[in-house]
Amino acid sequence: MFKRIDRLAIELPVPAHPDPNGASAVQELLGGKFGEMSTLNNYLFQSFNFRNKSKLRPFYDLVASITAEEFGHVELVANTINLMLTGTTSYSDPDAAPLEPAKHLRMSLHFIDGAQSSLPVDSMGRPWNGTYVVSSGNLIFDLLHNYYLEIGARTHKMRVYEKTDHPTARAMIGYLLVRGGVHILAYAKAISIITGVDVTKIIPVPRLDNKVFDAARVWEERGEHRRLYTFSDNDYQQIARIWRGTHPLDGGKLEAFSGVPGYGGPVPDLEEVPECFAPGLSPEDLEEIARRLSQEAGM
Amino acid sequence: MFKRIDRLAIELPVPAHPDPNGASAVQELLGGKFGEMSTLNNYLFQSFNFRNKSKLRPFYDLVASITAEEFGHVELVANTINLMLTGTTSYSDPDAAPLEPAKHLRMSLHFIDGAQSSLPVDSMGRPWNGTYVVSSGNLIFDLLHNYYLEIGARTHKMRVYEKTDHPTARAMIGYLLVRGGVHILAYAKAISIITGVDVTKIIPVPRLDNKVFDAARVWEERGEHRRLYTFSDNDYQQIARIWRGTHPLDGGKLEAFSGVPGYGGPVPDLEEVPECFAPGLSPEDLEEIARRLSQEAGM
Amino acid sequence: MFKRIDRLAIELPVPAHPDPNGASAVQELLGGKFGEMSTLNNYLFQSFNFRNKSKLRPFYDLVASITAEEFGHVELVANTINLMLTGTTSYSDPDAAPLEPAKHLRMSLHFIDGAQSSLPVDSMGRPWNGTYVVSSGNLIFDLLHNYYLEIGARTHKMRVYEKTDHPTARAMIGYLLVRGGVHILAYAKAISIITGVDVTKIIPVPRLDNKVFDAARVWEERGEHRRLYTFSDNDYQQIARIWRGTHPLDGGKLEAFSGVPGYGGPVPDLEEVPECFAPGLSPEDLEEIARRLSQEAGM
Amino acid sequence: MFKRIDRLAIELPVPAHPDPNGASAVQELLGGKFGEMSTLNNYLFQSFNFRNKSKLRPFYDLVASITAEEFGHVELVANTINLMLTGTTSYSDPDAAPLEPAKHLRMSLHFIDGAQSSLPVDSMGRPWNGTYVVSSGNLIFDLLHNYYLEIGARTHKMRVYEKTDHPTARAMIGYLLVRGGVHILAYAKAISIITGVDVTKIIPVPRLDNKVFDAARVWEERGEHRRLYTFSDNDYQQIARIWRGTHPLDGGKLEAFSGVPGYGGPVPDLEEVPECFAPGLSPEDLEEIARRLSQEAGM
Amino acid sequence: MFKRIDRLAIELPVPAHPDPNGASAVQELLGGKFGEMSTLNNYLFQSFNFRNKSKLRPFYDLVASITAEEFGHVELVANTINLMLTGTTSYSDPDAAPLEPAKHLRMSLHFIDGAQSSLPVDSMGRPWNGTYVVSSGNLIFDLLHNYYLEIGARTHKMRVYEKTDHPTARAMIGYLLVRGGVHILAYAKAISIITGVDVTKIIPVPRLDNKVFDAARVWEERGEHRRLYTFSDNDYQQIARIWRGTHPLDGGKLEAFSGVPGYGGPVPDLEEVPECFAPGLSPEDLEEIARRLSQEAGM
Amino acid sequence: MFKRIDRLAIELPVPAHPDPNGASAVQELLGGKFGEMSTLNNYLFQSFNFRNKSKLRPFYDLVASITAEEFGHVELVANTINLMLTGTTSYSDPDAAPLEPAKHLRMSLHFIDGAQSSLPVDSMGRPWNGTYVVSSGNLIFDLLHNYYLEIGARTHKMRVYEKTDHPTARAMIGYLLVRGGVHILAYAKAISIITGVDVTKIIPVPRLDNKVFDAARVWEERGEHRRLYTFSDNDYQQIARIWRGTHPLDGGKLEAFSGVPGYGGPVPDLEEVPECFAPGLSPEDLEEIARRLSQEAGM
Repeated sequence: MFKRIDRLAIELPVPAHPDPNGASAVQELLGGKFGEMSTLNNYLFQSFNFRNKSKLRPFYDLVASITAEEFGHVELVANTINLMLTGTTSYSDPDAAPLEPAKHLRMSLHFIDGAQSSLPVDSMGRPWNGTYVVSSGNLIFDLLHNYYLEIGARTHKMRVYEKTDHPTARAMIGYLLVRGGVHILAYAKAISIITGVDVTKIIPVPRLDNKVFDAARVWEERGEHRRLYTFSDNDYQQIARIWRGTHPLDGGKLEAFSGVPGYGGPVPDLEEVPECFAPGLSPEDLEEIARRLSQEAGM
Repeated sequence: MFKRIDRLAIELPVPAHPDPNGASAVQELLGGKFGEMSTLNNYLFQSFNFRNKSKLRPFYDLVASITAEEFGHVELVANTINLMLTGTTSYSDPDAAPLEPAKHLRMSLHFIDGAQSSLPVDSMGRPWNGTYVVSSGNLIFDLLHNYYLEIGARTHKMRVYEKTDHPTARAMIGYLLVRGGVHILAYAKAISIITGVDVTKIIPVPRLDNKVFDAARVWEERGEHRRLYTFSDNDYQQIARIWRGTHPLDGGKLEAFSGVPGYGGPVPDLEEVPECFAPGLSPEDLEEIARRLSQEAGM
Repeated sequence: MFKRIDRLAIELPVPAHPDPNGASAVQELLGGKFGEMSTLNNYLFQSFNFRNKSKLRPFYDLVASITAEEFGHVELVANTINLMLTGTTSYSDPDAAPLEPAKHLRMSLHFIDGAQSSLPVDSMGRPWNGTYVVSSGNLIFDLLHNYYLEIGARTHKMRVYEKTDHPTARAMIGYLLVRGGVHILAYAKAISIITGVDVTKIIPVPRLDNKVFDAARVWEERGEHRRLYTFSDNDYQQIARIWRGTHPLDGGKLEAFSGVPGYGGPVPDLEEVPECFAPGLSPEDLEEIARRLSQEAGM
Repeated sequence: MFKRIDRLAIELPVPAHPDPNGASAVQELLGGKFGEMSTLNNYLFQSFNFRNKSKLRPFYDLVASITAEEFGHVELVANTINLMLTGTTSYSDPDAAPLEPAKHLRMSLHFIDGAQSSLPVDSMGRPWNGTYVVSSGNLIFDLLHNYYLEIGARTHKMRVYEKTDHPTARAMIGYLLVRGGVHILAYAKAISIITGVDVTKIIPVPRLDNKVFDAARVWEERGEHRRLYTFSDNDYQQIARIWRGTHPLDGGKLEAFSGVPGYGGPVPDLEEVPECFAPGLSPEDLEEIARRLSQEAGM
Repeated sequence: MFKRIDRLAIELPVPAHPDPNGASAVQELLGGKFGEMSTLNNYLFQSFNFRNKSKLRPFYDLVASITAEEFGHVELVANTINLMLTGTTSYSDPDAAPLEPAKHLRMSLHFIDGAQSSLPVDSMGRPWNGTYVVSSGNLIFDLLHNYYLEIGARTHKMRVYEKTDHPTARAMIGYLLVRGGVHILAYAKAISIITGVDVTKIIPVPRLDNKVFDAARVWEERGEHRRLYTFSDNDYQQIARIWRGTHPLDGGKLEAFSGVPGYGGPVPDLEEVPECFAPGLSPEDLEEIARRLSQEAGM
Repeated sequence: MFKRIDRLAIELPVPAHPDPNGASAVQELLGGKFGEMSTLNNYLFQSFNFRNKSKLRPFYDLVASITAEEFGHVELVANTINLMLTGTTSYSDPDAAPLEPAKHLRMSLHFIDGAQSSLPVDSMGRPWNGTYVVSSGNLIFDLLHNYYLEIGARTHKMRVYEKTDHPTARAMIGYLLVRGGVHILAYAKAISIITGVDVTKIIPVPRLDNKVFDAARVWEERGEHRRLYTFSDNDYQQIARIWRGTHPLDGGKLEAFSGVPGYGGPVPDLEEVPECFAPGLSPEDLEEIARRLSQEAGM
């Protein structure tokens, strides 16, 4: 089971300007083959299908708890897209074609399917799909896959970072480069423990340190690249048996924590987009709704 | 953000016999257009993209908290599939073709792609995909969609219930018919509050009461069809402004609760399937792994 | 525009026994790459996109009118599937698992997605999709495509004919082999007129005459392989400028007709399938509906 | 069966200027999940699979006849796209790259796959596919689905209307907003009659009246939002048992008609696009074709 | 089996300027329905599945050897795309967003998924897929299909030629128009031999001679439209039994050759794209790698 | 460029009995995500897109030459499927339904789409598609991907081996386990040389030695697991700089060879399947064809 917290992993900057084609690039990090929906669903299914949990508890705990963190990453990328789209159009009468500024943009779905908000598709509009999930049941293979997958995800994040300097995109990617880096290392350590081959020495791939990226460095300076969380109140504690020792890149001490990180940020309260009929309720509607919500008996 | 609990929504019966083609039918409830991945991802994206949260808080809370419950439903269906597949084959030497019993079964992916475990596909092996998500930003439309989607999900559950009497499948479906019924009613109430049209009077669709299904009735007798949970420690409390009054079918009092239900069951510890190399570690491997996990310095 | 007639192209025999796996094969003729949805939508789009209609009227009329006939073919195949599925299961209490007879069948969608009825998918459950449509705008290429497509459709029909001797399937395929043969010849004649190369001499492909198939021969004996219809009250008359002369296989006279064929059959009134909740209305419901339909003011 | 009429639902304005990226947006209304191919094929399959037609004739007639109207809507949207693309490029020698003006446009398929004409894809080029069809066999569920689908289709139309003020697009969307509104109301009335819950009171969703849109208002002023047609010579007359009473928005009298509307417009005769080799025939070719068409014996 | 030669079919001009949206159009010729991956895989599977090879050797040899040539065409188109993308961006620090020039381009995959290089997708980013392959086993049908497929491929090439005058694109398309023309004629001759109907008289379709295209004419002037190669050291010699006589368009003598053409060009050595981390190795890395490659014992 | 040899990689045993559902499992090894089409196309595109070939020649040669071997593997799997299907049905008159034995089989496409022969789909009929290709341009990432991909391919082969003991399937899989094992090791060595981390020590994954499989052991006994071939007459010689030293599992000496292996087997001459109209030519047809092939002038 899962519990939800009405907070984002970090506070996202509310931007002054939109970047709709930047947002279309960020979709790759959400619904692409190497996007957050992929990391989430791979670990989700692997945790469901994990065999011999009792004897391999630290590894199960690792996969299961990273899954929980990934939900928050999906959420963070989606909110980033929403903020990047904010302000692309402005209201006018339908006959004045208020959505015309979006006519030449790359991702028409943002304006027709959704109301200038995120969708489970990649940067070409191709829907995320279940063939992106590998859950073979063979532990070494699944871990190798996760290691490879996270490196692919890192590569894509680095490239999207280079595609836009939009402050919200940068803040999100900087943070996720660091957290994704933790996952790469975590899976590398798991492989190393099982096979005796120290694949942590291969990172970073690509061979640029996260510290090269301004928006990532700030999180490394806070030590966030050395922390793994259970994302659980009481479970998955055995991640600490894997996540210990020192970081291969800067020698810092790895630390495992119970629960979620202490920071985090508010969920943005997205403004209305009346030209997209979102949420599509007038002041009178809101008043009437408030009245009904307050009626003695539930309707 | 999300936190994970290492418990299933309910205790699943560990079956004496497998039902692999039954498991292939249950895949429809996991990765099908009306499966739990669809309900989960629809509400997940709608909660991300919700506009004017501050003025429409009860509705945002409703969608956001049901999302959290749906994660547990995905988990429950996946675990059911895993238990239904348990025992389909038994170990022998590869040259003796231990997987031959699976050769004529419907879902070859269960035996080649995975190690007799769940996948994000439907009953025909078609991958779940992002076109199954609707997140228009228009609140009434999104709620109407959710209402329709849950009714479709209910229809599929009822039919899969009728396709197999495997005890694990029945236990899971019985429970989800009740919880899905709660979601139908919750969305119906939300629509009614916004529009003034009491669509709670339309249910049940199909017009069979959950009580007709033995495995659902036991949960209704416990009153589980009248309870909605926030699936959160502190947030989403305003679901109680929508989820109140009486149940349209039996007049029972609707009650909203903070947190997760008090019941729940253990996550099954799936046995090894050596003929699928899952998890694929020998006793010697396990010993060596234990040794490495206990080394002073983390590897 | 289109007008609909509540009649099938032919009278379909109502079978004594179901053939559900036969029905799954027939799905290939409906939603497969060479199925009726493909022929329909190819010609539909080609007729929309036809350039220089005024100077090429006979060819436009040909494509446009065959489109109209294809709608009826889609309808005929769908109804055949429905009749082939009739009787696969019988009603009992949900807890008695009345759909269990369907558990090992090939096409689970027939029992979960639909209520033992047709879907726009092929024999593997793969959805029909728009990449199956070719509408290049180049007339010779489009006609060559149609000629090839119809030959492919014929090949598939011949093979499905050989997969089942179910009387409804046979009646449908026999008829469509003849009508599809007319379309092959029509496109062949169009190509011949434009290019001067008599590709009518290539048929039949595969090199078995329709007369080899009992269920097709009856229609050829009625001369149906020599008739082309406008499937229109007043339009598309210029098909007669292409469809004339003699049939290359038996020398019979080709005749073009205005309107639809004089034969045809009733649309089957499919029985209820209460174990699939289809249509899912009780006698009391029906009574109440009748009452509401008769109320003075429309509801 | 179906008969075709060589007329469009309305007369489309022939535009002075192209709007190719506008045309790519309009593709969403043709091949998108909520496009006309979806409404068409949903009702087409539901009409095929309708159970207990004899006892539920008015509902069968409703679904079956709306299907027929939808064919004309698919046709209308496709022709609109064709007109919006007209003039995007102009002829020159291939070596002069006459299609270069299209190089940066969104929908490359319009220029490579087709000859500046419509395709069964959405605004991102994703092919329409059969998973967009719901035909559950449960009447209430299918009608709820149709009601939801039409509201989604309306939302998309309203947004595309706002994306372009191209006169052909506007004329088409204005008309279809009105006709789609009729279908929403028709399904709402059907649901109301079966369930007793008056869901007609929920419309319009989104909560903008069609009258807000100039190009729709002209059709409402003609009363076209109050008329339902059988789109059949003699069948489907029982739609009148559902389509009666008054319109919930303006109180006007609902009227059912046999046949097709009396208005309508000519099918545009699309000009040659020699730089796309469409239709790709020279004056000499045309002469030779004319000669062959006039030969005594059919070739 | 296949052997590879580290040479391209022709020498591709190394361009002075990039044409990234041109490259996105060229993707249609690689991964589109009528692209080189389609011709390759169609003939590949048909050659695997060819029945009665002994009695139909010339036809088997034809399909099998053209397959081998198609591999080189896939390679040529891919290399063209790579050269067309070269120089789209230039290196700078990641924080300076060096990939921003690509933000508004059509094919985001070229910059996120790949490092400014080719992918198995079409001009809309839709992945090539196996439904594009026809391998019916019926020889006449398969040959008719190939004839149609090659004509479609020619149409697409002609249109992409007109979309960009980039020198690398033009050189590649000019050559492939000629070689594709050979394949059209080869399949036409095969059909003619089997059926007695001379379909070679239908070409060219579209009715523009290759000689109209500057970049194609140079190859026709060299006689390359009259030569067919076995693309094999010793096998497939019986293509000469089909490929003989004269060319229907210019009357030149058709000649079959053993092996590959005598011309060809170097495989371009693509430069590093450090802003895409490709290949992502520093001078120090290269030095270390060189050292390890030279170590006495293989690592 | 590529040259083709009319030989298979090994001699496939011609079986006494068919195994059609076994053949459907083998499709996973052809068109599945981890099938031979995937390995082939991944390396094919990576070789096209390889940057800095001059400085990284041994790695380019490795990827480029393994590509060439993979073509032969695709061919071998396809021929295996064809032989496994041989004899599933036998000829009779179409009206006697000669394909009925195939009605309940898993892969209907084998009998409708093809003539009992291979297709580019996986074991569920899902088409192979281009999203299975990774070609990032980052050398370490691409090699890690290939290493992971080959391990996945090995896992699938091992499971399909266990699903059927059909002699043709076993012969093919045994051989490919050995050759795939060579590729795993080759990529592992490449990674080790670049990164200094010896990932060859991780293999075998899954942790069963190939020698456990009878049909693989015979090839290891011949030393085939220690040989890498250039699959080229003259190129790709620098694979020898990577492929040297000893095998990590048995200490045998690794040897690189120019060209293709010396063994190999004949391409099976598949018999006619007249009930599938394949190749669909009568003795009279063959005679006529022979006559036309011998005519003085090419037709």
